[in-house]
Amino acid sequence: MEKKAIIVIGDGMSDRPLKELGGFTPIEIARKPHMSQLAKEGECGIMDPIAPGIRAGSDTSHLAILGYDPYAYYTGRGAFEAAGIGLDVEKGDICFRCNFATVDENTFIVKDRRAGRIREGTHLLAQAINGMEIEGVKIFFKESVEHRAGLVLRGEGLGHRVIDADPHQEGVKVHTVEAIDPSDIASQKTARIVNEFVKRSFEILRDHPLNKERKSQGLPPANIVLPRGAGTAPHIPSFEERYGLKGACIVEVGLLKGVGRYLKMDVIDVEGATGSLDTDEQAIARASLEALKNNDFVLCNVKAPDVAGHDGEPYKKIEAVEKIDRMLGTILSGIAPHNTIIVLTADHSTPVIVKDHSGDPVPIVIWGEGVRTDEVNSYGERSCARGGLGRIRGLDIMNILTNLLSIQEKFGA
Amino acid sequence: MEKKAIIVIGDGMSDRPLKELGGFTPIEIARKPHMSQLAKEGECGIMDPIAPGIRAGSDTSHLAILGYDPYAYYTGRGAFEAAGIGLDVEKGDICFRCNFATVDENTFIVKDRRAGRIREGTHLLAQAINGMEIEGVKIFFKESVEHRAGLVLRGEGLGHRVIDADPHQEGVKVHTVEAIDPSDIASQKTARIVNEFVKRSFEILRDHPLNKERKSQGLPPANIVLPRGAGTAPHIPSFEERYGLKGACIVEVGLLKGVGRYLKMDVIDVEGATGSLDTDEQAIARASLEALKNNDFVLCNVKAPDVAGHDGEPYKKIEAVEKIDRMLGTILSGIAPHNTIIVLTADHSTPVIVKDHSGDPVPIVIWGEGVRTDEVNSYGERSCARGGLGRIRGLDIMNILTNLLSIQEKFGA
Repeated sequence: MEKKAIIVIGDGMSDRPLKELGGFTPIEIARKPHMSQLAKEGECGIMDPIAPGIRAGSDTSHLAILGYDPYAYYTGRGAFEAAGIGLDVEKGDICFRCNFATVDENTFIVKDRRAGRIREGTHLLAQAINGMEIEGVKIFFKESVEHRAGLVLRGEGLGHRVIDADPHQEGVKVHTVEAIDPSDIASQKTARIVNEFVKRSFEILRDHPLNKERKSQGLPPANIVLPRGAGTAPHIPSFEERYGLKGACIVEVGLLKGVGRYLKMDVIDVEGATGSLDTDEQAIARASLEALKNNDFVLCNVKAPDVAGHDGEPYKKIEAVEKIDRMLGTILSGIAPHNTIIVLTADHSTPVIVKDHSGDPVPIVIWGEGVRTDEVNSYGERSCARGGLGRIRGLDIMNILTNLLSIQEKFGA
Repeated sequence: MEKKAIIVIGDGMSDRPLKELGGFTPIEIARKPHMSQLAKEGECGIMDPIAPGIRAGSDTSHLAILGYDPYAYYTGRGAFEAAGIGLDVEKGDICFRCNFATVDENTFIVKDRRAGRIREGTHLLAQAINGMEIEGVKIFFKESVEHRAGLVLRGEGLGHRVIDADPHQEGVKVHTVEAIDPSDIASQKTARIVNEFVKRSFEILRDHPLNKERKSQGLPPANIVLPRGAGTAPHIPSFEERYGLKGACIVEVGLLKGVGRYLKMDVIDVEGATGSLDTDEQAIARASLEALKNNDFVLCNVKAPDVAGHDGEPYKKIEAVEKIDRMLGTILSGIAPHNTIIVLTADHSTPVIVKDHSGDPVPIVIWGEGVRTDEVNSYGERSCARGGLGRIRGLDIMNILTNLLSIQEKFGA
């Protein structure tokens, strides 16, 4: 039976010592028997997702952890967001993030950039807009959560160096999109198409029944689409091409689903996985065990600790860590131990005191047959720093794993 | 008196924890007073020959340890193998590995890819073949061990992107060599020359007296040469050019002798150095001490632990480590201690359980005046991981050494 591997990522789980926790970090304080079992039986270290001190995003960090250098492959979040909401994205497509917004019907002054944080019915609005063709360019449009949506342009001779239609503030007019460099003909073409798309979106949405109803309820109508953040979809070899491994992703947020879909991994949705502190970690554990049966490799990301970090809530972060520990317990009791490598780490630190991603390294443990067990007995930012792995980078992880799985080509003779 | 340095490499010596050794590695279990003296008095760490997780060959690893980035300089083993058997190789030469083989004299179907693993008299066959010139291209050919040989083409307008003449199986015809890309004129020229070379090798060998004798003894005649693995010889600056150091190599296997010759180091053959478990480590120690008198730098590689690793023999590997320890004892008692830096490491791990090279890091100790002694008291994969060097790479070693030797140019002001 072939060896398998699972990488468990506590999103933003790593932190800094906190005064209110007596100088300890949330991971250090948490009750975490299974994490510390991994540390005791495995090989520990600290990991810089990109490089020491660099503040990683979740997308760039996951690319690195999966062995894709983000400096070579990352062209912005647009392509991954679009893939994440289920749009089909191909190399060379121009991708945008969009908001449904409310504009004055005569002046096109933005009254609400989020159309009252509209939640219901955006799929109907998106269906009405999707499927245009302008100047021979195919246009794909799909709703995301709340007021958010994705836009993909596919055609010849398109550039991505254009300004946003979204003015990023209320009380001003929708921007007429222009090429950043006036001599860039490809981006000029994109600009023309986006302007026409925005105009048509207004014409379609203005009188849409859903908006009539919103008006009658005193809600701001979602009467325009405002694209922003243009990026060209990069060419990235699929995970299976790269490693010869069948890989699955169990991740909660759209951006990371997009990364998984972009790498042509099997992206598995789990009922009860909310991406929030109330997520059903046992459902994620069961789905991970099931995914390990049908795949060689599983990446599992739990978002809760990142949410607590962004919210600046140390005790909620401790609870999120304990949730992941219980999830690991279920995974540990369900795997074939002689046959499975487990990696436990975070994609970046989201320190409670920073309320955002930071460039601090994250603890990592690699557990399974063949690893050089060290003297670390507890999982944590500082205990793992004394481990046998030393200080590695996100891009090292897949090399270390394919070595342990005995599937790596030798470099040289 | 100038400082000197010696790097002692236990080939493939590093390993993984083994159940049959109580969870220890062969190095950890071995009796190794001199290795542990180095660890106690020196500065320890772990070293990735190429990068974390990457499975290094002996050739790529030695290039890195000698300060040559294999991603920049390595074009395949052919050039080093050819240099290793004593062929003169220049930048741009096209190098092949070859077998003496047995073909049916009428159909050219390969009957034995190794000509009955011929051992005796191949130097006579090689002499008969060596020295051709085809289309103005000079051809150098020399026997290696057993049925193996090397081939070098030197001339204008040659490419290396050709298929092998060797079909890599018996019962099929010798391949007519072709350029991989039909529009690649340089490789087409190489293909024509190799085909003519193979044909002429057959004409010369078919009636060679040695083959007549083999036939009369019922042995398969070595009646053809089958080239494979074409590669262009890279330009690599010599060791002395690079460092201003006079360097010597005491290595047992042809491939590494080739690396040393390619770098224009003094490659010293040692009687009794067999490249096997029965090697005379005291002869190697004496030769190393002698070489240190006449050189600034000596690289010494003992192959035995790698052999035991490939064979999956933990106790033989322990014996090989102990052999190297005794060798170190002799070296330690013969050097000028205030004047000599010793590096002890491995070129890669060859875990008994993997029976091949792996990407696990290797222990390293740097010993001599000026190093920052740490608290590690034993040489081993896991004890050294707690050392002051941390986790370094093969390419770092020569920089660390030239720093300790005080011969490195300052970068900046």
